Amino acid sequence: MNVTVIYDSYYGSTKAMAAEVAAGASSVAGAAVRCLSVDEASRDDLEWADGIALGCPTHMGSIAWQMKRFIDEEFAALWQSHVLVGKAGTVFTTGGAGGAGGTELTQIALLSNLAQHGMILVTHPHNMPGFRPDGMAWGATWATGRGDRPPTQRQIDSARSQGQRLAEVAGKLMA
Amino acid sequence: MNVTVIYDSYYGSTKAMAAEVAAGASSVAGAAVRCLSVDEASRDDLEWADGIALGCPTHMGSIAWQMKRFIDEEFAALWQSHVLVGKAGTVFTTGGAGGAGGTELTQIALLSNLAQHGMILVTHPHNMPGFRPDGMAWGATWATGRGDRPPTQRQIDSARSQGQRLAEVAGKLMA
Amino acid sequence: MNVTVIYDSYYGSTKAMAAEVAAGASSVAGAAVRCLSVDEASRDDLEWADGIALGCPTHMGSIAWQMKRFIDEEFAALWQSHVLVGKAGTVFTTGGAGGAGGTELTQIALLSNLAQHGMILVTHPHNMPGFRPDGMAWGATWATGRGDRPPTQRQIDSARSQGQRLAEVAGKLMA
Amino acid sequence: MNVTVIYDSYYGSTKAMAAEVAAGASSVAGAAVRCLSVDEASRDDLEWADGIALGCPTHMGSIAWQMKRFIDEEFAALWQSHVLVGKAGTVFTTGGAGGAGGTELTQIALLSNLAQHGMILVTHPHNMPGFRPDGMAWGATWATGRGDRPPTQRQIDSARSQGQRLAEVAGKLMA
Repeated sequence: MNVTVIYDSYYGSTKAMAAEVAAGASSVAGAAVRCLSVDEASRDDLEWADGIALGCPTHMGSIAWQMKRFIDEEFAALWQSHVLVGKAGTVFTTGGAGGAGGTELTQIALLSNLAQHGMILVTHPHNMPGFRPDGMAWGATWATGRGDRPPTQRQIDSARSQGQRLAEVAGKLMA
Repeated sequence: MNVTVIYDSYYGSTKAMAAEVAAGASSVAGAAVRCLSVDEASRDDLEWADGIALGCPTHMGSIAWQMKRFIDEEFAALWQSHVLVGKAGTVFTTGGAGGAGGTELTQIALLSNLAQHGMILVTHPHNMPGFRPDGMAWGATWATGRGDRPPTQRQIDSARSQGQRLAEVAGKLMA
Repeated sequence: MNVTVIYDSYYGSTKAMAAEVAAGASSVAGAAVRCLSVDEASRDDLEWADGIALGCPTHMGSIAWQMKRFIDEEFAALWQSHVLVGKAGTVFTTGGAGGAGGTELTQIALLSNLAQHGMILVTHPHNMPGFRPDGMAWGATWATGRGDRPPTQRQIDSARSQGQRLAEVAGKLMA
Repeated sequence: MNVTVIYDSYYGSTKAMAAEVAAGASSVAGAAVRCLSVDEASRDDLEWADGIALGCPTHMGSIAWQMKRFIDEEFAALWQSHVLVGKAGTVFTTGGAGGAGGTELTQIALLSNLAQHGMILVTHPHNMPGFRPDGMAWGATWATGRGDRPPTQRQIDSARSQGQRLAEVAGKLMA
């Protein structure tokens, strides 16, 4: 099964997080994985995928505009074709302070786009490795400051476990 | 596979909608379906299920308290056991005016509970029968007034298609 | 001007937080303050107030049902009378983990009720005393565990500053 | 008092709605009003204002990226200065279908930015002229299709009443 991880990154933290999500997905047998920034990815990477993970920082209390532009341009172009309906999707975020105002709204904005496309949403279960203390139920989140805090092992685990879970669910849904 | 539909109803509209969701689930081969009010259902009906649908009215801009009490008492009792992790879930709502303020927040509050339990969220694709004009991407919604408007055929179709979809996804995830 | 603080509390943390919000409101010249649990308060306390603060825990990713019942019964009874339109309102929350999944949705559910009544929403500015690390922009939040963590001075400051701000804005709006 | 209305428009509907919000603000004695697109406005227009109205379409279930870029670039530049703390703010939206999935999340994303800046949020009371059928409690919304539906008188009234209300509250808060 194919998994595409798409991220927008400002200080580099979300890029690092995306790499861990991709590594988790790659650990599933039979998974082919693409990990791309919003500047590299296109609608072709969305069509190719059986599972899609979206990640970005929280800016001013909601989704970073660069990710939203990607959604409004590339995702939107596929809306009428219904090609994403029934595929698996999941989301992850970074923010200056873990869980501070806006983090949850950013995750819900990302999920809203996946819902608009009729996708199946893979959440972040609280019994997954590394869930605490940075886990949110909608998706993993890293409190990253200004990119000057390297991720902890628990943060790495939370991102990897979510990527693995996405690939597993995508595999089941396409079977 | 087993599907439990749980509803809270005030004027009777959400009960009627739940019956259609249940009918849609029952149309899938191999499905056993329970359709229960929040007063009839218990945590046992949650454990039994492979797929769970939750529906309630929007009151004062968010989830009706009777449904929230069911969640805080019955769902919460299962949280530490992780028995719901990985099961399929979906939500539906009614409201005086379709899509007016609070409908979307009610659906997200219901989904937030499913996410807290690590469930897989089945959305309401825009190419499903009856999606328009009452469809919302998170889940079907009926504009029902004070229960004095009988559902239209499109509304019935939207609820049924969502129930059918929940059962199909639950079946794939447990396979 | 009159301020009513209404809380729902499980382990006692939200009750303690409400007392600090009330203390902050009382510090404003000319303020008369009531601080009541959802079991003690009624629609009369809402009508009496020029400013209303609502606070509750986050349970299963959204608003605690006891607070929602108060809203659905007491606030809802005033909806058609428009008596709350234009009054000031603010919200505060507690949760096991600060800012974890659901805290923001709980605050927004409380705000949605205030919005349904046409109230003016007083947020929690990031330059207020004690904002960090528990502040959220929608309203103060305390990470309280199971009530076994006494509030820090910063948490106390954040709740007090929000209560003071509510009273000040309520005074301006009624002038 | 000074009011700035800032909009992002795709087919022209949100621009027309912004003009009505601005007209409503201008009807208040002593109001100076600027009505600008996100391409015309800058942080100077935010600093100048005592009241700010933000409006944009709903795209893919949340805030349009052009408005979010304006927020991430112009609003964000003022965050550390606290110059917007205590000012009045309000939001309005357009969408293909009134109140369909994402409209409410778009309004909340706009409000989240205003909350991050510690602003006072002016909601859209249900007893204002033109509230129904397009009113949402968070802010007025117009169901505009692809810009091919001219606004109804009720829609015009709802936008004007919200602009007037913003100016009135801004005047009280600065008094």
